[in-house]
Amino acid sequence: MSATAVDIQLIVFDVDGVLTDGRFAYGREGKQTKSFGPDDADALRLLTAVAPIAFVSADHRGFPISKRRIDGDMGHELTLVSSDRRLSWMAERGPLEHVAYMGDSFTDIPILRAVGIGITTADALPGVRDAATYVTQRRGGDRAVAEACFYLLVEQFGRTEWAGIV
Amino acid sequence: MSATAVDIQLIVFDVDGVLTDGRFAYGREGKQTKSFGPDDADALRLLTAVAPIAFVSADHRGFPISKRRIDGDMGHELTLVSSDRRLSWMAERGPLEHVAYMGDSFTDIPILRAVGIGITTADALPGVRDAATYVTQRRGGDRAVAEACFYLLVEQFGRTEWAGIV
Amino acid sequence: MSATAVDIQLIVFDVDGVLTDGRFAYGREGKQTKSFGPDDADALRLLTAVAPIAFVSADHRGFPISKRRIDGDMGHELTLVSSDRRLSWMAERGPLEHVAYMGDSFTDIPILRAVGIGITTADALPGVRDAATYVTQRRGGDRAVAEACFYLLVEQFGRTEWAGIV
Amino acid sequence: MSATAVDIQLIVFDVDGVLTDGRFAYGREGKQTKSFGPDDADALRLLTAVAPIAFVSADHRGFPISKRRIDGDMGHELTLVSSDRRLSWMAERGPLEHVAYMGDSFTDIPILRAVGIGITTADALPGVRDAATYVTQRRGGDRAVAEACFYLLVEQFGRTEWAGIV
Repeated sequence: MSATAVDIQLIVFDVDGVLTDGRFAYGREGKQTKSFGPDDADALRLLTAVAPIAFVSADHRGFPISKRRIDGDMGHELTLVSSDRRLSWMAERGPLEHVAYMGDSFTDIPILRAVGIGITTADALPGVRDAATYVTQRRGGDRAVAEACFYLLVEQFGRTEWAGIV
Repeated sequence: MSATAVDIQLIVFDVDGVLTDGRFAYGREGKQTKSFGPDDADALRLLTAVAPIAFVSADHRGFPISKRRIDGDMGHELTLVSSDRRLSWMAERGPLEHVAYMGDSFTDIPILRAVGIGITTADALPGVRDAATYVTQRRGGDRAVAEACFYLLVEQFGRTEWAGIV
Repeated sequence: MSATAVDIQLIVFDVDGVLTDGRFAYGREGKQTKSFGPDDADALRLLTAVAPIAFVSADHRGFPISKRRIDGDMGHELTLVSSDRRLSWMAERGPLEHVAYMGDSFTDIPILRAVGIGITTADALPGVRDAATYVTQRRGGDRAVAEACFYLLVEQFGRTEWAGIV
Repeated sequence: MSATAVDIQLIVFDVDGVLTDGRFAYGREGKQTKSFGPDDADALRLLTAVAPIAFVSADHRGFPISKRRIDGDMGHELTLVSSDRRLSWMAERGPLEHVAYMGDSFTDIPILRAVGIGITTADALPGVRDAATYVTQRRGGDRAVAEACFYLLVEQFGRTEWAGIV
C-alpha cells in the first residue's frame, strides 16, 4: 500500500461520464442509448474481491438503460440518487472518510472533497479535477473505471501484483 | 465581472455541433439519433438564473429529435431558425450588442461578428474561431456549452464563485 | 488561384470515412447506422456552384443508408462503384487529370495518384496520405469534406473570399 | 522479412476493442450495437492469402452482433472463447510460438506473452502494451487491425510491396 492509503470500506461509482463517455444518443422518442466501454467490467470484478462496490445515478430518464447494464449484465446494484442527496446517502452507509467515490460532473465537486478518496476522469472540467485525490489519465468510457480500479487495488489495497498496469 | 463584460440580456445557443458533437447517425429511414453530452444541461440551469436563454436550430429533418431534448427533457424552448434568418430573429428580441450567441458552423461567422459576445467551439473551423469573442477549449458535445456557461457566469455576470472551474 | 491550380471539371467524393467517420454501428440485423458530421453539407452547397460533384461508394450493404443521406437529404447523386472500377468509372466521365477525388482507404492509393487532385483525410493510413495532393487536417466525419471544399474553392477555383477559413 | 520474423501459421484476432472501438451502445433492451471501423476488412482480405485467420470473442451477450459482422459480412469464422480458455483453444490448433494474436484487454496479458507474436492497440492499458510484441499506433476500431495486417504482411511474411503503408 502507498503512504497515502486510507481505510476504504465502500467504493461508490457514478455511471454517466464515468462508466460511459457521457454521451446520450437521442432519437424522436428521447434517450435511446448510452455507450459503455472496454476493460471496466473486468476490472470491477477484481475490485469486488476487496471492498463493497455501489453504483449511483442521477439520470432518471436514462435509468432503465443504466440499470440494465449495471444490474442485469454486470451483477452490481445501481441506485437512483440525485447529486444533492449523494453525500447523505453515502454517510448513511459508513463514515465518509472511508468512502472512495468516482464522479465526473461539476456537481460532484463537494462530494469529491468530502470523501476519503475522490476520483475523477481526464475529461472532467478543470475545477472537478482540482477537487479529486486521483484523476485518471483515461476519459470516461475509455477505461477510466478500469484505471481507477487498478489505482485502488495497488495504492489502497496493496495488490502489488497489478502494479504497472496503468 | 471582467473588464470586457458587456450588458448581456439574451443568450442564444445553436444546437447541432454545440450541445451535440455535430454527428448524425443515419439509418435506412434517415436521421435517427444525435448525441448530447455531459455537464451542459446542469450548467445551463445555473445560467438560467441570470439571463433569458433561447435555442435555435436550422436542422428541420432532425428537429423532432432536438425538440425532444431541449424542450421535453431540459425545459428550454427550441425554435427552428435558418442560418440566414438568425440575425433578424435575434434583432427582433433585443439589440444585438446585448446578445450572446454560441454557434459552431461557418454559416455562423456573420452572426458571431454581429452580436455582443460570440462564442464557438474548439472544433469549429479556424475562420469560425477567428470570428468569435470566446472559443471554448472543449469540442461540441464534450462540455463546450458547460464551459461557455461558466465563462458567461464568471466573466460577464460576475459570479466569481465559479471562477477556476473551466 | 494558387500556382498549383489545375483545370478541375469533375469532383468525386467517396462516402465512408470521408463524409462519415468510417464507423458502422452493427446490431443483430447487421449494419444499422453511419455517422455524418457538421459543416460538410453546407460547404458542398458552395462547391456545387463551381463544378459538377459526384459521390461513389463501394459499400453495397450500407448503400441504402448512404443513398438516403446523399440523395435524399443532400440532393446529390450517389453511385455504387467498387474500388477497382473507380478509375474507369471516372475516366468515362472526363480526363482523369481534370478530376479531383477524395477518398480515405488504402484501396484509394492508385486513384489518388492517377487523378489531377487527390485529397485524403488526416486519419487515413500514412501510405494513403503520401499518395494525396492534399491531406485535410480534419478526420473523416469531422469537417474533412468542408475543409476539402474550401481548399478547392480557394486554391483551385480562386474563390479568395473563403481564404483563411480552413 | 524482418530479422525478428517468426514462422506464423495461425493468426487470431479478438473482436471487441480490436475490430471495434470497444464501446457498446446500451438501450433499455441491453446491448444494441457495436462500432466497426474502416480499412480493417479490406486489409484482412490481403492477410487471408498468406495465413489462416480466426476470430475469438468472450462477449456472449453481444455474440450475435459480432457473429453477424465477422461471419455474415466478412466471411470469416468467429468462435466464442472466454479469456481463460483462449490459450488452450489456440494450443489445440498449433504450437503457440507459431501463433500471432491480437487483443486489447488486460485479460489478454498472459496470452500476448505466450504467443509467437502478440499485438495490441494504442489504447490498451500500459501493462497490456508492455506485454505485446507490436503495439499499433491506431486505436481499436480506428484502423488498428489494418495496421496489424500490414505489419504482419511486411515484417513477418515479407510482402514488401506494402512497406511504408503504416
